[in-house]
Amino acid sequence: MSRAILFHGPQRPFELAAVEPPPLGPGELLVRILACTICRSDLHTHAGRRHGHTPAILGHEIVGRIEAFGPDAAPVDLAGTPASVGDRITWSIVVGCGACYFCERDLPQKCVELYKYGHEAVTEKRPLGGGLADHIILVRNTAWLRLPEKLPTPIAALANCAGATAASALRAAGPIAGQRVLVLGAGVLGAFACAMASAAGASYIAAVDPQAACRERAVAFGANATFDAARSDLVEALRAAAGGIGFDVVLELAGVTPSVATALAAVRTGGTAILVGSVAHCDSLPIDPEQIVRRMITLRGVHNYHPRDLQAAVAFLAGPAAAFPFASLLVADYNLSDADAAFEQAHAYPGARICVHCE
Amino acid sequence: MSRAILFHGPQRPFELAAVEPPPLGPGELLVRILACTICRSDLHTHAGRRHGHTPAILGHEIVGRIEAFGPDAAPVDLAGTPASVGDRITWSIVVGCGACYFCERDLPQKCVELYKYGHEAVTEKRPLGGGLADHIILVRNTAWLRLPEKLPTPIAALANCAGATAASALRAAGPIAGQRVLVLGAGVLGAFACAMASAAGASYIAAVDPQAACRERAVAFGANATFDAARSDLVEALRAAAGGIGFDVVLELAGVTPSVATALAAVRTGGTAILVGSVAHCDSLPIDPEQIVRRMITLRGVHNYHPRDLQAAVAFLAGPAAAFPFASLLVADYNLSDADAAFEQAHAYPGARICVHCE
Repeated sequence: MSRAILFHGPQRPFELAAVEPPPLGPGELLVRILACTICRSDLHTHAGRRHGHTPAILGHEIVGRIEAFGPDAAPVDLAGTPASVGDRITWSIVVGCGACYFCERDLPQKCVELYKYGHEAVTEKRPLGGGLADHIILVRNTAWLRLPEKLPTPIAALANCAGATAASALRAAGPIAGQRVLVLGAGVLGAFACAMASAAGASYIAAVDPQAACRERAVAFGANATFDAARSDLVEALRAAAGGIGFDVVLELAGVTPSVATALAAVRTGGTAILVGSVAHCDSLPIDPEQIVRRMITLRGVHNYHPRDLQAAVAFLAGPAAAFPFASLLVADYNLSDADAAFEQAHAYPGARICVHCE
Repeated sequence: MSRAILFHGPQRPFELAAVEPPPLGPGELLVRILACTICRSDLHTHAGRRHGHTPAILGHEIVGRIEAFGPDAAPVDLAGTPASVGDRITWSIVVGCGACYFCERDLPQKCVELYKYGHEAVTEKRPLGGGLADHIILVRNTAWLRLPEKLPTPIAALANCAGATAASALRAAGPIAGQRVLVLGAGVLGAFACAMASAAGASYIAAVDPQAACRERAVAFGANATFDAARSDLVEALRAAAGGIGFDVVLELAGVTPSVATALAAVRTGGTAILVGSVAHCDSLPIDPEQIVRRMITLRGVHNYHPRDLQAAVAFLAGPAAAFPFASLLVADYNLSDADAAFEQAHAYPGARICVHCE
C-alpha cells in the first residue's frame, strides 16, 4: 500500500489517501519516491491561478529509486546507462507518444497525447502520477535518468523542472559564450539561468527581481549586476549596463507582462529574447511589427522541455554547479503527511524551494 | 559626366541632373549602371509612407559593369572570383564598417555606420549612390558579385533586394525541406519566397494575397494553394489547409498588421514566423505572452540582408529559378530620363517590377 496526497482544488485541504499500486503495464516502472520539491507551477495550480485537474497528485520535481520494471521495460536509462532495482533516478516531466506530428519533429514536449507528471487527474488506471506520494508509476516512453551518487537527492530533484527548463531556455537562445545575458526573474529558475550562463562563458550577466534577497542571491549564482524590477528607469539602466546596445540574450522567467515588455526593450538589435515564465494568464502586450523587423529581434517561447535538457541539467548539477550555492535554494523540509504546511510555507517563499520527503 | 535622377521629396517631380563622378577613393569601384528595378520600398519613400533623405538617388536593385577600380580595390568578388573592367556585377544593398559591435557579430546589415545604396542623401563627397543614374560609386567594403553570363540583366537586378531578402527570410526560418510553408503577401518578394521554398523541398506551400492576379501568379511560382487575404475565415481556412495543425514556417511579407496577426495565428506549435514586410509604420499588435510560451512560437524579424543572402539569390536565379516564370515579374521598361512615368506605373503595379534602363 502507498500513501498519496490528493489535491481536490484551490482553497481545499489536501487528502492523505491510501492507494494500492496497480500491476505494471508494458514498459512501465514502479518507483519509490525519495523526495519532491514544490515548484512554482505547483503553487499556481494550488492557488487556482491556473486550472488543474482534480483529484490529482501534485509535484513533478521528483527523485526516487527503481522498485520494479514492468514487462518489456528496458533496464537502460536515457543516456544508455544500464540500471537496476534500487538505482536512484529522475525523469522528464512530460512523456510523448513518439508517433504524432510533434514527436516526429523532435518536440515530444508538445505531443498531442502528452502525459505530464504531477498534472494529470487520478484515475483507476493511473492512480500514481505525481510526486507527493510514496510511489509513482512511470508510463511507457518516459525518459528517465540514473543520478550520479554524489548528487544529493533534494538538489537532484531541482533538475527535473527548474534545471531542465533553464537548460531548455539556454539551448533555445543559442551559444552563450561571450554573450551579454539578461535574466528577468531571479527565483529558482533565475538562479539556475545565471549559474548555467556563467558556466557557459557569458561575458556579462544582469539579473532583475523585485525582491532584494533574490537579487543578492543572484550574485552568488553568477550575476555581475542586479536591478530592482520596480525601478522606473529599469530599461534605461539595463541598456546602459549593456554598453548602450542592449543584451545579446534575454531570458524572461518572471511571467508578468511588464517583464516581457522589458525583455523586448532590453534585447539588442539582432538579439534573442526567450519567453519562459508566462505559463499563467497574463495581460496582453502591444508589439510594433516594424520594431521586430528593423531590430531583427528573435522572440521565442519555451514550454516544458526536451529529455536532452534534463540530461544537461543533471550534468550541470553534477559538475559546474559546485561553484554555486545550490543548497541555499532549499529552505525547509517537510514530511509527506505535512503537505498542507509545506504548501503554506512554499507560498511564502516563491523564490526558493520546499522539499517534501517521502521516505 | 553622368546623369542622375534626384528625388526631392514626396509629391515632387524628379530632377534630371548632371553629375561629374569624383575621383575614386581607396577600395572604391566606379560602375556603369545597366538597369535598376523599382522596389516597393522605393515606392514607400517616393509616396512619403516612410521618411527618405533628400536630395537622394533612389533605386537599389541595380546591375552594372565595372568601369574602374579605385586605389587598393581588390579585383576579386564576394565569392573569390577574379573580375576585371567590363564585368557585369551586382552588390549588397548595405555596407557595414567591418569593425562595430554588429559587424563583428556577423550582422553587417545592422552596422552602426551603415551605408545603404539608394537611401543616402546626395553629398559632394558621395554624389552617386543610387540606381537611377548612369554611374554609381561602390564604397569600400561593398560586397559585390560577378553575374553569370546567362542571367538577363533585369532579372539579375531583382536579386539585389527582393531575391536576397527572400533568401534571408528562408535562412532565418531554418531548414525548409519537408516543411509546410505559408507565404503572406504574393508580390515580387512573395513570388521569390514561393519559388525558393519549392526549390528547397517544402512539402506544401500556401500563398495569401488580396489580389487575384498575384494569387494566380503564385501558383506558377510553386504555391500549392492560394487564399484571398480578405476572407473573413482566413485563419480557419489556413489551419485546415495545414492539417489542422498550422504551418511549420510562416513568411510575413505583406507588412500590414492584420497579416502579422494571421502569421501568429497560422503558425503551428513549435513553428517559426518570420516578419519581413513591416518596414513602414503600421499599427501595433497585441500579443499574449502565454500563447508564445505554450505554443513555443519563434517570431523573428529580418531586415536588409547579409551578403551571403545575395550570393544565394544569384545562385538561385542562375539555377532552380529556370523552373519559374521570373521574366513575368517585369511588366514594363523605361529609360532613365522617364523616371516620373516609371514611378507612376510602378505605383499602379506594386506586385510587379518596372525596369529602368540606364544605358
